[in-house]
Amino acid sequence: MTKRALISVSNKDGILEFAKELVALEYEILSTGGTKKMLQENGVPVTAVDEVTKFPEILDGRVKTLNPMIHGGLLGKFDDPSHQVQMNEHGIEPIEIVCVNLYPFVETISKPDVTWDDAIENIDIGGPTMLRSAAKNHQYVTVIVDSNDYSKVLEQLKNLGATTIETRRELAAKVFRHTAAYDSYISNYLTEELFPENLTITYELKQTLRYGENPHQKAAFYQKRLGSDFSLAYATQLHGKELSYNNIQDGNAALQIVKEFEIPAAVAVKHMNPCGVGTGTTIEEAFDKAYEADPTSIFGGIIALNREVDEATAEKLSGIFLEIIIAPSFTEKALEILTKKKNIRLITINFAQEKQDPFKVVSVEGGLLVQEDDAYGFNDANIQVVTDREPTEEEWAALKLGWSVVKHMKSNAIVVTDAQMTLGVGAGQMNRVGSAKIALEQAGSKAKGAALASDAFFPMSDTVEAAAAAGITAIIQPGGSIKDQDSIDKANEYGIAMVFTGIRHFKH
Amino acid sequence: MTKRALISVSNKDGILEFAKELVALEYEILSTGGTKKMLQENGVPVTAVDEVTKFPEILDGRVKTLNPMIHGGLLGKFDDPSHQVQMNEHGIEPIEIVCVNLYPFVETISKPDVTWDDAIENIDIGGPTMLRSAAKNHQYVTVIVDSNDYSKVLEQLKNLGATTIETRRELAAKVFRHTAAYDSYISNYLTEELFPENLTITYELKQTLRYGENPHQKAAFYQKRLGSDFSLAYATQLHGKELSYNNIQDGNAALQIVKEFEIPAAVAVKHMNPCGVGTGTTIEEAFDKAYEADPTSIFGGIIALNREVDEATAEKLSGIFLEIIIAPSFTEKALEILTKKKNIRLITINFAQEKQDPFKVVSVEGGLLVQEDDAYGFNDANIQVVTDREPTEEEWAALKLGWSVVKHMKSNAIVVTDAQMTLGVGAGQMNRVGSAKIALEQAGSKAKGAALASDAFFPMSDTVEAAAAAGITAIIQPGGSIKDQDSIDKANEYGIAMVFTGIRHFKH
Repeated sequence: MTKRALISVSNKDGILEFAKELVALEYEILSTGGTKKMLQENGVPVTAVDEVTKFPEILDGRVKTLNPMIHGGLLGKFDDPSHQVQMNEHGIEPIEIVCVNLYPFVETISKPDVTWDDAIENIDIGGPTMLRSAAKNHQYVTVIVDSNDYSKVLEQLKNLGATTIETRRELAAKVFRHTAAYDSYISNYLTEELFPENLTITYELKQTLRYGENPHQKAAFYQKRLGSDFSLAYATQLHGKELSYNNIQDGNAALQIVKEFEIPAAVAVKHMNPCGVGTGTTIEEAFDKAYEADPTSIFGGIIALNREVDEATAEKLSGIFLEIIIAPSFTEKALEILTKKKNIRLITINFAQEKQDPFKVVSVEGGLLVQEDDAYGFNDANIQVVTDREPTEEEWAALKLGWSVVKHMKSNAIVVTDAQMTLGVGAGQMNRVGSAKIALEQAGSKAKGAALASDAFFPMSDTVEAAAAAGITAIIQPGGSIKDQDSIDKANEYGIAMVFTGIRHFKH
Repeated sequence: MTKRALISVSNKDGILEFAKELVALEYEILSTGGTKKMLQENGVPVTAVDEVTKFPEILDGRVKTLNPMIHGGLLGKFDDPSHQVQMNEHGIEPIEIVCVNLYPFVETISKPDVTWDDAIENIDIGGPTMLRSAAKNHQYVTVIVDSNDYSKVLEQLKNLGATTIETRRELAAKVFRHTAAYDSYISNYLTEELFPENLTITYELKQTLRYGENPHQKAAFYQKRLGSDFSLAYATQLHGKELSYNNIQDGNAALQIVKEFEIPAAVAVKHMNPCGVGTGTTIEEAFDKAYEADPTSIFGGIIALNREVDEATAEKLSGIFLEIIIAPSFTEKALEILTKKKNIRLITINFAQEKQDPFKVVSVEGGLLVQEDDAYGFNDANIQVVTDREPTEEEWAALKLGWSVVKHMKSNAIVVTDAQMTLGVGAGQMNRVGSAKIALEQAGSKAKGAALASDAFFPMSDTVEAAAAAGITAIIQPGGSIKDQDSIDKANEYGIAMVFTGIRHFKH
């Protein structure tokens, strides 16, 4: 009996060669629509699906293959006597190979001018059904959804006379991954419900990584289609070896901070906390400040800059050991200088095309936490001066800078800043005054006349006292403690200007 | 013309009442298999699907509804003249309502004795296809996959004569979420590939949360079916208001640490870092030590204990302000004492049924990082004494404790321990000696004769010097720096016993 292969593809890459090889292997090709036409025009003999179904294509192609003559051929167990009897009775012949890919739903909805009807018409029904039938019956049927698998299947057919069960099972798993992803995109298009009863999110492999946070953990980096462009998943790497797991986390952290600033800014990150943040009228000046903020910790760090890296800045960057530099662009001269360093990675990201993912996720054992991003900035805060003294203009600038940075530090977080840069960074402490001590100690004498920002309220006045003792003159914090008045009194006592934001910025 | 509703459900909850109501609303019911039998036995008039298809059910039920007479009825646009002509020509009548739920694939594979054939037979083909056809055509067709939606649909049919387009769209989105999740489970069953080309992860809503890390962020907690049981997603809450987003993260962190210990242990956590870890021969003693480790930071914290909480321990726990207590169980007396406190949450988790999720995920902008857990413990480490002096038995105990704890602290991490408890915790610093200073300062005079553990190697010998100055006599760290010999020399100079593990434990 002739073997049969059903081919119906939206993406026609490589399909003609594949079909010709199948014909050479004496397969009868079943097809329909555009695929059939294309194969026939190129001299491949094709049996029309409606010859098999004895039923015409109807409803503008919505119903073509949804027919027992097709699905009986896909779902019958070739070696089950009762199945064989039934198939013979109805004239159903087995289909050994199914090669189908789907209407381009994601590509369609990605078009800026897509209409609702266009999107709906691109929800494939027949295709997923054939794929799923064949995948269920992979004990007998070979199913191909990805054109990259044509050669592997052909090779086995030629060399072994049939595909192996291992290959058929892999291909079947791929089909269910594919249909799962496909339906996940459709559901997200149909509704904007943030927290539905079933959360199904789908990502495409960007790269497997050498390892995860540590060498004994396997890891991979996935990208979100239709996700944010302002992302390392969509960045261009100009130079250097591939990013590691920790690089991606640190780089992402640096990007989140630097995007807080409209003026030229540079952010150095170590272990997901900023070690130095600098701003200036030029990107060179911003880098100078970020470096000056902590010339020790920046060693081996990651730096993100929100302006093109020019020659002068590149010279300075090349003078220290950095793992990664991320920027919107590099001048030719800058590239020339920096690419001389073998071990640095240079990455560009489109800062203009900023789009934010609607939510972020993180695993806990047995589950997943899902939350919106902390998108509130300084301008969203309900700023209120609570002390007798108002901040000076210089202090306002320092407070704003501090508030933009402390938001991205691991809690509990305290940062000491002047109008241009961070002076002391206290992150990740189990109690707040501990974070303040670290930040103030690092700032040292520079704390005099500087500002202090806290990601959450002061449960008591001890942080104000520590700040005053170090010479801090302005404080920004959410407020909201039952002991706020103690902190306000203490600030007034020392002539400190204190501002409440009403917004907390915990981050873990 | 009579309206028609197609009903085919695996989960029959509420279906009889729903069908009766539809009949009362003059719907003709189409059905097949077990659903048809059940409805007929209960006096509901039913038209068999094969009367509509004029084609018998074949292949052990694998092919029943995959037929143009059904899918034409689901996919035809009711108001499109050319569709109507074609439908009339082939005798296809529209189907206005589809009520289908799927073969219980997940329930089947959850059974301990499931066979491969059983699993495969429970991959539903006809059901998802009807759901997807109807959902695509939701402009006209009402599709129900969830029995919770029966009443809403009936209400609209009764009150408005039809469902609203908004409802039909919501129901359609739910269908695609459901089929996406269904196929995701199937693909995961068919293959154990860790990092496939498409990653579709699916979770079920456990609860929406009041907010996320901060009040201005919406958030929800999802549970992973077939995931780990040793999980807050599968815990029992005995007392207190619901967990917050930060509670879940902190509680999860506490659980990961406490499960490192076989002996009685108590772990207090603040902002995802341990502030006090204690062990002992009884759980009371373990708590005493955890408390003594840092009586300040434990305030408002979360504590996890790996033994039943008894009366004596409960008395002590009730003496301090804690947000959450997690344990395998509480004695009746203990519950009596602790439930007097309105604001505490008491949670039990099955410590015995530990099963680990194969990977964890975390969002970055535009993408997702996926990695295996850091499952390596002290016993997996390649322990090597690198100094002249070997650790004493007491020091070995302290080193082991420190290594188990430092693994779960935010990097860079240093912890100072004795044989029973943490003495100083330095977490989340941008440089290593900074973490050491924090830990040693907290330990104070208790550092004399204590052990120090570091999650990553010492890039230079300054941490050894700081440790020696504080009186540390034993150190555990991965080793692997090009300057290891400097650290070893320095340790020998001070008579410190130093151990390399060969394993790093970064955590962010």
